[in-house]
Amino acid sequence: MVRIGVLVSGGGTNLQQLIDAQATGRLGGGEIVTVISSKPGVYALERAQKAGIEAIALSRKDYPDVEVYSQALIDALKARNVELVVLSGFLTITSDSFVQAFPNRIMNVHPALLPAFGGKGYYGLHVHEAVLSRGCKLTGATVHFANEVCDGGPIILQKAVAVQEGDTPESLQKRVMEQAEWTLLPEAVSLFCQGRLRVEDGKVSIAPAHAGENAGAAPSEGVKQ
Amino acid sequence: MVRIGVLVSGGGTNLQQLIDAQATGRLGGGEIVTVISSKPGVYALERAQKAGIEAIALSRKDYPDVEVYSQALIDALKARNVELVVLSGFLTITSDSFVQAFPNRIMNVHPALLPAFGGKGYYGLHVHEAVLSRGCKLTGATVHFANEVCDGGPIILQKAVAVQEGDTPESLQKRVMEQAEWTLLPEAVSLFCQGRLRVEDGKVSIAPAHAGENAGAAPSEGVKQ
Repeated sequence: MVRIGVLVSGGGTNLQQLIDAQATGRLGGGEIVTVISSKPGVYALERAQKAGIEAIALSRKDYPDVEVYSQALIDALKARNVELVVLSGFLTITSDSFVQAFPNRIMNVHPALLPAFGGKGYYGLHVHEAVLSRGCKLTGATVHFANEVCDGGPIILQKAVAVQEGDTPESLQKRVMEQAEWTLLPEAVSLFCQGRLRVEDGKVSIAPAHAGENAGAAPSEGVKQ
Repeated sequence: MVRIGVLVSGGGTNLQQLIDAQATGRLGGGEIVTVISSKPGVYALERAQKAGIEAIALSRKDYPDVEVYSQALIDALKARNVELVVLSGFLTITSDSFVQAFPNRIMNVHPALLPAFGGKGYYGLHVHEAVLSRGCKLTGATVHFANEVCDGGPIILQKAVAVQEGDTPESLQKRVMEQAEWTLLPEAVSLFCQGRLRVEDGKVSIAPAHAGENAGAAPSEGVKQ
């Protein structure tokens, strides 16, 4: 059983998909043991509580700088023996020490087909605005491990979504969420929890089903970055 | 009937798809009136001849510089009243005057999901090497109008192709060709010939079927780039 901590900042629609996946046995034996929000009072915390999951707020403004805040997150997650951290609409900046504390154990979902429309400035609606501005006919979502490079970590899963005539950034964001993010993230978490992800040279390989006997085995064991 | 000129440099597998599409009425009423190769003796010329299409070689090395060569291409295409130019594995560099002579009337197929893995240096196997090196799980092909920016012109169609475990640049190139390029290019040419493509602000919109009555209407009429 892999202990999962989910970091949120808002409504928690991706968190809900993870909760539902766990409830219906589609999380590969993983268990969400804590949900931590960078803002108090967000709906994601309510979703966690409704599901009987610990829900805590570690508010960014209660800490003097990003380094101290990141250490508080690390401490909270380590104290709960969290093995996989999922960034689920977590919009608060953390320091390198945070990703270094969980190498290839922090998952993020990005609303585009990386490396396109990734990196600094590409978050939320800005991503979809850029996709439409370039006139792309295809976009999608990417689940990847977080590392020190913004949106530059090892890619786990990607799924394409068609841009439609007349799309606005909002309509495109909704479709990418519904058709890609909501299915990709639980699937990637499940693969991790089944011990089927291996990272080498910054690339993720996915072992076939039933080949990974050691559920929860560290995907980063023997990693050469 | 839209008069099409296809530019090639090698084997002409994409050209063959266009020839087959025309033969089976899937080219939207377009007709390939000439195939021009930048190298003599390539198999693409033979494919054209077998299909009863004029096949000529304008060898780059017979011209002193890229400007004079580009003008020779323009002259050859204009003399044949070509309305749509298709770059089909055409590997020879042309000058800005060439794209300016056929604004939004030159189509190119790129073996990746632009804007990812496009621009200078990204051609042929280099594209697929870069996709694998980044560890992408999804790639594909893009058909776009050529403009002065390498791989930066208006995007017409895109199709995704899955990267598989154990892929080499060669196996990925083959799959992207077979699953994306070979279907996308004839489809884009057909849309053009049906008069269903409009370009505005560097973006392509596709009119619904039967809405474009004026087959062969200039997609660049009223274009603001």
